[in-house]
Formats: sequence, structure tokens, C-alpha cells
Amino acid sequence: MISVEEAQRRIAAAFSPIDMETVDLGHLAGRTLAEDVKAHTDQPPFPLSSMDGYAVRSADGDAPRAVIGSAPAGHPFNGSLEAGQAVRIFTGGVIPQGADAIVIQEEVDRDGDDIHFNATALHPDYIRVAGLDFKIGDVLAPRGKRITARDCALLAAGDIVSAKVRRRPRVAIASIGDELSRPGEPRPPGGISASSGYGLSAMITAWGGAPCDFGVLPDTAQEIATIADVDAELIVTLGGVSVGDHDLVQKALGSRDFELDFWKVAMRPGKPLIFGKLGTTPLLGMPGNPVSTLVCAILFLRPAVDALLGADAAGCSLPQRLKCGCRTMSARLKRGLPANDSRQAYLRARLWQMDGETWVDAFDIQDSSMLSILAQADSLIVRAPGAPAAEAGDRTEVIPLDGY
Amino acid sequence: MISVEEAQRRIAAAFSPIDMETVDLGHLAGRTLAEDVKAHTDQPPFPLSSMDGYAVRSADGDAPRAVIGSAPAGHPFNGSLEAGQAVRIFTGGVIPQGADAIVIQEEVDRDGDDIHFNATALHPDYIRVAGLDFKIGDVLAPRGKRITARDCALLAAGDIVSAKVRRRPRVAIASIGDELSRPGEPRPPGGISASSGYGLSAMITAWGGAPCDFGVLPDTAQEIATIADVDAELIVTLGGVSVGDHDLVQKALGSRDFELDFWKVAMRPGKPLIFGKLGTTPLLGMPGNPVSTLVCAILFLRPAVDALLGADAAGCSLPQRLKCGCRTMSARLKRGLPANDSRQAYLRARLWQMDGETWVDAFDIQDSSMLSILAQADSLIVRAPGAPAAEAGDRTEVIPLDGY
Repeated sequence: MISVEEAQRRIAAAFSPIDMETVDLGHLAGRTLAEDVKAHTDQPPFPLSSMDGYAVRSADGDAPRAVIGSAPAGHPFNGSLEAGQAVRIFTGGVIPQGADAIVIQEEVDRDGDDIHFNATALHPDYIRVAGLDFKIGDVLAPRGKRITARDCALLAAGDIVSAKVRRRPRVAIASIGDELSRPGEPRPPGGISASSGYGLSAMITAWGGAPCDFGVLPDTAQEIATIADVDAELIVTLGGVSVGDHDLVQKALGSRDFELDFWKVAMRPGKPLIFGKLGTTPLLGMPGNPVSTLVCAILFLRPAVDALLGADAAGCSLPQRLKCGCRTMSARLKRGLPANDSRQAYLRARLWQMDGETWVDAFDIQDSSMLSILAQADSLIVRAPGAPAAEAGDRTEVIPLDGY
Repeated sequence: MISVEEAQRRIAAAFSPIDMETVDLGHLAGRTLAEDVKAHTDQPPFPLSSMDGYAVRSADGDAPRAVIGSAPAGHPFNGSLEAGQAVRIFTGGVIPQGADAIVIQEEVDRDGDDIHFNATALHPDYIRVAGLDFKIGDVLAPRGKRITARDCALLAAGDIVSAKVRRRPRVAIASIGDELSRPGEPRPPGGISASSGYGLSAMITAWGGAPCDFGVLPDTAQEIATIADVDAELIVTLGGVSVGDHDLVQKALGSRDFELDFWKVAMRPGKPLIFGKLGTTPLLGMPGNPVSTLVCAILFLRPAVDALLGADAAGCSLPQRLKCGCRTMSARLKRGLPANDSRQAYLRARLWQMDGETWVDAFDIQDSSMLSILAQADSLIVRAPGAPAAEAGDRTEVIPLDGY
């Protein structure tokens, strides 16, 4: 039995970033960059006015100016300002040659083609200099970054039309068990719906992978062994990994060149986790209880997908991700918790804000078969092996379940 | 000039939930329910063992038992336990008639068809009673909930194959300005790339809407007026809403039955915001500076999309969403901030955790044209109108920019 951290370390070490593909700007959001994206232009490409008013020469002081032309956005003034001259300008208009300040329109009176100052108000700072936001060749988004909506706008400003990203890693999912059938299908006696695969597919999609749910395999070594023929970057089995006579995964895969890395992790829920290689394809064998499956997915499958994507999540340090599979935060316990045993525990819980503090409370029922509790949760409280009893008000480490 | 809260209130009041459509379970993640989803089955449908071992009658105490059959998952034992009998059972196996406790396999010695206890270990609690997780007719996910990956697993367990959700609201986007061209297209003199629309489209998609980017319209009343012919639940214009001669949106739309609700919000960035109705379609006119556009989208467009979806985000109270357009949290300032003027300010900032506290620091440069700063930010510090100077270590309200 190994620790959660050791299991995460071994899983992360088994993957490297997969091949890349070129994707258009309009479809980049959520994809992970395979290379630094560099600006194709200065932004702004030329000095611009940030206000509506007049472009002037500050050397002329507050003397009246003769307006010799205009420069709305997209229509530069073709010419140069001489002493005593001004050009009418609008937000986004190009600063004409010779101008080095803006007078805003509220601070002048216009009389025909002349303007007179009604306030002393020369504003060099209303000129946005060329390259203020970024310069040609600047890295707008680094390799390994998962592209946000804001990045899409930034890349567009940099005149980027496409970028190289990692292909979505294919994750094959097989649910194992004679008792399982798909929702809506006729139920045999003693049968229940296969549920975890649906949650897992949605998580994998949210994390940037391409799930492929192979559905339900019966509890026979021959059927289970067929997953060795799947073409994927990662194979996930659900169920069949406990200690009973009907737990066949290891036995079945033994016939197909399965090399075990580890089996069993000191955690709750989810102890009977298997990791190894089936031929050249990593295989993660997860427990069949749906809550165990989904918690193990957050802790072990997400780092695997991240490693395949070469993801280096901004705002989330590598040690944090290795430790917890996702970002953790701190919260105060509404109620105390008993001392923990030797297995790292992940308690389903709810967070809220009060008086500027984040509070968390664990659900009373932590049964690993109860999806209704997991669905109501918005966080997992992390309890280290051997953690002493905690009191109400103590701080605890929490994994928020945002977005999945 | 109205307050942010008043603008959010007026915008939210202008929308009601749109029509619904039926979506298969495999595509429900991220969609918003238009009706309560109720379980089609008890879960579990019958009492199940949560361990590998033997199903026994507790009335028999620790006497040896005769094993009369087996009940692996998916293969119920057809018969009933009499005194002194046991049935071999596995995790997920149906509890046979007459049994009311489990003995786990490590706590018995098996001798042919007999088992002898090596520990006093009757476990009624290893039986998962029928309906433990939920009962037929229970609401698994309420109307207005945005479906998570965990909900997908829960719905599958409840034998749900599809659900009614809100259609994705169509949001038309038009960028206005003679200076704009699409990235990669030839640039006229004084021209820059239209950038905000790409960020906005990605945000709208992330929030559950269907963006339709109509691209760039030149600065003429005739061209701008064409957006009145768009078929959408919401029209968004970018740019052309300031005070200069070349700000044509209101003028242009006046010819097409535009009824103004408000213009100008006491905020920074983003003061020149327009909201009204173009015929029967709500129109949100946002400022052209890309940072202003995207901040206004978070504050005003997201609540509009939520209202169209009838979304009632779990873990996020309605007042919170109305106040800030999304969830807010509390963080400590790394550095102090000067007193604020009369406009509510949204400062681009970064968050981190240290010693169990969340800290935040504003970027030194807050220029509303600088997308590079917005892309590096992971949060917005909210500064109320007239807020006094804040010291390092003070708590402040923060909008995290997770996932977009």
C-alpha cells in the first residue's frame, strides 16, 4: 500500500506530452499550448489617442491652435503638425506626426477652425505609445498554458490566427461487472445502472481529454482482456479491482502483457487502485463504487491528462498539482472532525463565505456508494494519514470541485 | 450614471428563461436544467453487500454456518436463508432473503461448505439498504442547476437517459469601428485587430450560450443599423458607445426602434455601457477597449446569459450573482490601495495561498487597453465607490476569474 503522493508521482512519471495539432483562434479556448505563442505585431501598432479631443504639440503651451485636419480611429491624418496647429482626434485615432499630447474636447472651446483652452490641460498620458500592451515577438501565452477566453482576445490583438496545441488525449473507459447495464436498458435480476463512466467522461472532457466509453464488460477474463486492443493514450477500468473471487482485472490482463506498477493506495475512498502498463499503454484500474471512482479520477486521472497535455496550469504550482491533483485552498471547519486513521481521507463537503472567511462542513454520511452526497458537495476536505482530531474553527485543506 | 448593482438589476429583469430542448445524458454536462430531474429507480434497487464475505442471519450468533450458495454482483441467490446457513457474497451482490448481516471473508475460516468465525464480526452495516442513496421519484437535480460531471453519474444511477434543458441562448456580437479588421487580414493604415469578440465568444460558450460573431461593422449609421435584423436572444455591440463625434451606435439604432434603458455606469473600466431594447431584443452596448469589454461581460453579460438559462447556480446565492455577476470571495491585500473615487473599480490582480490565507495583489498598470495584464490576472479586486484607502493586510472583495 503506497501513499497518495507516491501514487500521483508514479502516475505523472508514466506520461509525457502527446503530439500537437494546429487549431484556429476561434477554437483555442480550453486547449493547451504546445509552443509559446508570440505576437505578430506591436500593440498598439502606432501611438493612439485614448480620448476624444485634439492632438497638439505641448511646446505650444496653452496658446490657441488652428485645427488642420482630423484623425478618427481607422483614418490617420496624412501630414505633420507645425507650431500652433492641432488635429481633431478620437479614441483609437493615430497620433499625427509632431503631436505629443492630447487636449480633451471638454477642455477647449471651438471657434470655426480654431480652438481655445478653457482649462490648462495638456495630457501626454492620453497617448498610448506603440507597443504599450506588447511588442512584436513578445510571448503572449507560454507553452503548457491552457488558453482562457481572455487569452483568445490577447492572441487576436497580436494578429494570431491559429496556434499549435496538444491533441486531446484519448482515454478509453471500460466498466466491468455482470451487474451493470446502461441507463434505460432492461435490467437483469440484481442489475444496476453503470453510472461512473458518465461522470468520468464529462470530467475528462472538462480537463481537455477525449473520452471514449466502451460501455460495460462482463466479469470474464476473456471479455476483460479485449481492452488490450483499444487504441488510446490511457485505459481506465472501473470495478473489478478489489480482493474477492470475482475481481478479475489483474488476472485477465496478466494474459495480455500487463506490467503492474502499484496496487492499493492508502486512501479513503478508493484504496483498491491499480496502475500499470498494458503493453505500452498506461492503465488505471479504479474501484467500482462511483464515489471512489470520481474521487480517484480527480486525484489521479486529472494529473495523467495534464501530463499528456504538457499542462503547466497558470496560478497552480506543480507541487500543488502533484499533491492533490488540482488546486487546494484553506478553509475553517464549521464542526470538528475525529482523528484520522492511516489512510488519507477525502470527505465530501460544502464551502461558504462568512465574514470574509471561507468555511467548510463535511456531510455526515460519507458512504462511497452515495452519489447523491457527492453531487451535492462542492469540495473535498483532505485529511492526512494520522491527522489528529480537529476542532470547530480549525483550518483544513480543501479541494474545491469547481466546474466538474 | 447608475451604479453597477442597479445596472445588473435592470439587465437581469429584462430576461426570462428561454425555451427548452431534450438532451441525452452523454451531452448534459454544462447544460442548465429546465425541470427537476427525478429518479426512475431506487438506488440501490435492492439491498446490496458492500464487502466480500458471507451473508448470514445475525440470530445464529457466532455458530458455524453451512454455505448453501453464492451471490456475486449481478447474480442473485435464488432462495432463502434458514437457521445456520450462509451465502457466499461479493461486493455489489444482492442480500439473499433471510440474511441481515455480513461476515467479511478475512474473519472466517472455510472448511469445505462450512465457515467458522475467527473473530466475532457480524456486520449489519455492510448491507446497503434499498434506496440508501435515493428513492424513486426523489429529485436528483433541481430545475435551474447547471449539470456537473458528478450529476451525470448520479443521473445515470437513477436510470435517466435524457433531460430537458434550456436551449443555448444565441448572443450576437458585432464589433464596430473603421479601424478594425479580423486577425490575419490585411491591415489598412491606422488599423488594428478586432480582439474583444474572440474573448467574448469564448466566455459566452463557457457560460452556456451560443455566440455568433458577426465580425466588424464600419462606423456608419447605415451599417450599424443592420444588426437590428439579427435573430438572437441578445445583441452585443462592442465600441461606438463613448461621447465623441464618431460614436454612432445610439444614433444608428434610433432609426430602428431602439428603446434606451440606461447609458453609463459608475464603474472603471467600462463607464460607457448602454442597455436597452432593439425592437423586442435586448441590446448591450459595451465599450470598445478590450479590457472594458471583457470586464463588462463578466459583470453584465454573464447574469444576462444566466437569466436566459434560468440558472440558479448551486453554491452561489442570487444576491451574490446580482451583485457581482459571479461568485466573489475574500482575500487579504499584499499592498495597500489608495482611496477610490465615485466609480466602482475592478482592478486586475493575482491571488495566491500562504499560511492558510488567500492573498491578492493588484497589477501596477490598470490601463483598460492592456489585454496582456488582463490575461495574466486571475482575479478582479472590487473597490466600492468612495472606498477609503486600504492597508496591506486588509481584506478585500475579489472576483476570481476561474475557467475564463
